[in-house]
Amino acid sequence: MNRRKFFKNGSLLTLGTTVLHPFTGKANTIPFYLQSKNKKAKNIIIVVSDGMSTGTLNMADLYLSRKTGKGSNWLQLYKDNRVNRALMDMASASSMVTDSAAASSSWGGGVRISNGTINVSKSGEVHLPIWQKFKQAGKKAGCVTTVPITHATPAGFCINSKSRNEQEKIAEKYLEQKFDVMMGGGDKYFSSENRKDKKDMYNDFVKSGYEVVKTRDAMFSATNDKPILGVFHYDGLPYSIDRENNKEILQKVPTLAEMTQKAIEAMKDHPNGFVLQVEAGKVDWAAHGNDISGLIYDQVAHDEAIQVAMNFAEQDEETLVIITTDHGNANPGVIYGGKANENFDSIQKYKHTNDWILNGIGRETSVAQIKERIAYANNFELTNEEAKLVLSYYSNLQKEEGLYNPKNLPFKVLAEIQKQHNSVGWISMQHSADYVELAMYGPGSSLLKPFIKNTDLHYLMLEAAEVENTF
Amino acid sequence: MNRRKFFKNGSLLTLGTTVLHPFTGKANTIPFYLQSKNKKAKNIIIVVSDGMSTGTLNMADLYLSRKTGKGSNWLQLYKDNRVNRALMDMASASSMVTDSAAASSSWGGGVRISNGTINVSKSGEVHLPIWQKFKQAGKKAGCVTTVPITHATPAGFCINSKSRNEQEKIAEKYLEQKFDVMMGGGDKYFSSENRKDKKDMYNDFVKSGYEVVKTRDAMFSATNDKPILGVFHYDGLPYSIDRENNKEILQKVPTLAEMTQKAIEAMKDHPNGFVLQVEAGKVDWAAHGNDISGLIYDQVAHDEAIQVAMNFAEQDEETLVIITTDHGNANPGVIYGGKANENFDSIQKYKHTNDWILNGIGRETSVAQIKERIAYANNFELTNEEAKLVLSYYSNLQKEEGLYNPKNLPFKVLAEIQKQHNSVGWISMQHSADYVELAMYGPGSSLLKPFIKNTDLHYLMLEAAEVENTF
Repeated sequence: MNRRKFFKNGSLLTLGTTVLHPFTGKANTIPFYLQSKNKKAKNIIIVVSDGMSTGTLNMADLYLSRKTGKGSNWLQLYKDNRVNRALMDMASASSMVTDSAAASSSWGGGVRISNGTINVSKSGEVHLPIWQKFKQAGKKAGCVTTVPITHATPAGFCINSKSRNEQEKIAEKYLEQKFDVMMGGGDKYFSSENRKDKKDMYNDFVKSGYEVVKTRDAMFSATNDKPILGVFHYDGLPYSIDRENNKEILQKVPTLAEMTQKAIEAMKDHPNGFVLQVEAGKVDWAAHGNDISGLIYDQVAHDEAIQVAMNFAEQDEETLVIITTDHGNANPGVIYGGKANENFDSIQKYKHTNDWILNGIGRETSVAQIKERIAYANNFELTNEEAKLVLSYYSNLQKEEGLYNPKNLPFKVLAEIQKQHNSVGWISMQHSADYVELAMYGPGSSLLKPFIKNTDLHYLMLEAAEVENTF
Repeated sequence: MNRRKFFKNGSLLTLGTTVLHPFTGKANTIPFYLQSKNKKAKNIIIVVSDGMSTGTLNMADLYLSRKTGKGSNWLQLYKDNRVNRALMDMASASSMVTDSAAASSSWGGGVRISNGTINVSKSGEVHLPIWQKFKQAGKKAGCVTTVPITHATPAGFCINSKSRNEQEKIAEKYLEQKFDVMMGGGDKYFSSENRKDKKDMYNDFVKSGYEVVKTRDAMFSATNDKPILGVFHYDGLPYSIDRENNKEILQKVPTLAEMTQKAIEAMKDHPNGFVLQVEAGKVDWAAHGNDISGLIYDQVAHDEAIQVAMNFAEQDEETLVIITTDHGNANPGVIYGGKANENFDSIQKYKHTNDWILNGIGRETSVAQIKERIAYANNFELTNEEAKLVLSYYSNLQKEEGLYNPKNLPFKVLAEIQKQHNSVGWISMQHSADYVELAMYGPGSSLLKPFIKNTDLHYLMLEAAEVENTF
């Protein structure tokens, strides 16, 4: 049988990289992740999109494919068969639906604990966080994120705390442990002006030998000889699409990919290697707000950080790259309909998040101004009734609750209006129990089975790096 | 280093089956799907859950895990590392969100066509359906489903039709092609009483040498020497949970697993092998109705059919089993909240679908009767206001549209009420654009890459069976 003319699409279906065997000339189609099977991971980079439902991963890929002809870096790794994949059950000790604190702690401490806590069990037992284990094994360790660096996902790898909300204390605990690169938002937990106890944590970090940076330029200029604390905004960093459309922020605040690049540069020459957590934390905040341009563009920012990690790992050959999320949120998806394609493509013209739209409206705003603002940001016209409905939330006539919605703004109302124009739907403004997507590249990735529990990842990281779990 | 005491959970993380190499005594951890790499698939069984969002797969597994301590058969295959997995892009020629006709045609004809059509391109070009290709290659071919056997998913593997809606004609086309086992619902497209043209298709099938069966018992008694047509209900078969709670239906209508078992028995001794499509078609209908007990219990019925296919394939060793869905629908998920666990677990006490609940209500029903009916079916109390809202849809005061909702019943309203009690949310009552889950076991499964297009599956099936694509 002539295999050459056999199948039109045959080449698309071959498993793994095809390498000609040096002696037999026969094709060898072992998957990439089995080729590095017996190597040890000197470094680990885990790139987490917080609160990424499978639909978010899919929509970001569809968005990029339709806009640029090239999909996401994450799914390109699948197309090229370069990673090992799994589904991961993220349940916490208290619920089948985890929060970010329990989720990160399951990876960080290797034990399922209750929602809201960080590496402390109900009984009070504390579990040594994995970045401390790696520090004790001689590696450098760091975290970069788009939310406050004291937020649940970085904290779950770094410290113990009975409550995720004690972010001022978490900042102090970071200093005690002397992590090597900690960058993100959260000035309110570090500066004497904004901390409740008026303590100047920046000063404490400097005294302890840190370089403290507060702008993108300062970050790039920082020496790699000192540990680095980078805090670039009061709370979470601005959403990617809002950053793009604001010159001041663009200059001051680095992207997630840029922070990732700097963190790798700062730690890569350490003889015992390094571990780095990269978090696209505002993907979760956007999902809580059913905020489609917040969600897609921050997921794309996460995807660009993946590429930075991969570029390093491909060169380095001793780095395990882990790509995942800590839980679903709002399960968004593009809904069937005659105009699904053009509606979804209209998001390409969005200039700002719903967070930007709604925070720029006040009780004094007119119906015409609301229509103008949304037409500018989303490229479609609200009806007068829709604009009036939005406005009613600013006169205390109505209000919405929401985890990242302290002003009770009408995020749900706006998403419902947008849905008619962009065909994107949401099940809620909260986390979901869905098993999550997990991918691994490089040494150690062959340890991954197609379905794991969140706590398995803790032991996998230790095993991949051959760091003994004697803690 | 002592590897034995190395990691608490190390054994959970080993890839593939561990076999001691006969000469070296060293462990060999090649995944299952690579072990059968060079074998040819004599038989193919594709088990499709129609309209299964990733959330549906997850919820069925969570449901079973929490109820029985053992999750789904589908995900058990992942836990045991017995299958190769992929994400699959199901877009059609006309939309990023496919319908079932274009979806099945992409697999069946190897070409993306417009929604609503079956293996016929916009230009009029017809694409030879894959079950006809396998028939020409000497294999037996069949389909079993829980919706009419003339419905889009089986039709897409079997025939060409400009419209999926011409189900009477599709019944005639099946007869022309003499498929070996065709079973499901759809009496309305076969019987002289119910067909528009009053033709007696059963008679035509009998004259052509078929055994025609209309009950579960008759199905089990059918000889395996003749081709079989099985039609067990007027339209789609009753939902699994309604069947369980209705003795008459229980006796008359087989389960999907039973039809699968019979179809395999009827075709397995054919020297050239067989191909079989198994469809849990009402998972999609349930998603269109945001009907949680329709969805979960029919997904579980699909899961039981997987086990039947796997039991055969494990013994046979020449069978490729493909497990997947044709598109997402409604992206359901369990939503975060203090009572998420107990709310989700309350579904274990549901006795009937929303389809059963709503079809048993009429304009003459009282508020008290509605409350009683739902308390019986769902084990919770409606408020009077909620019952009145439901009732308002029976007086033509209000109505809902829906693909499988000809009577305009309040499916959405009921799902919104239930959500407070079961914590399950839905993005819509329609298909979604999400990439779908795909798993393969047995010879040919090593051909699968981690991300494919729907049309790739057409060529993969031909290649796995080494059937030349010269059509």
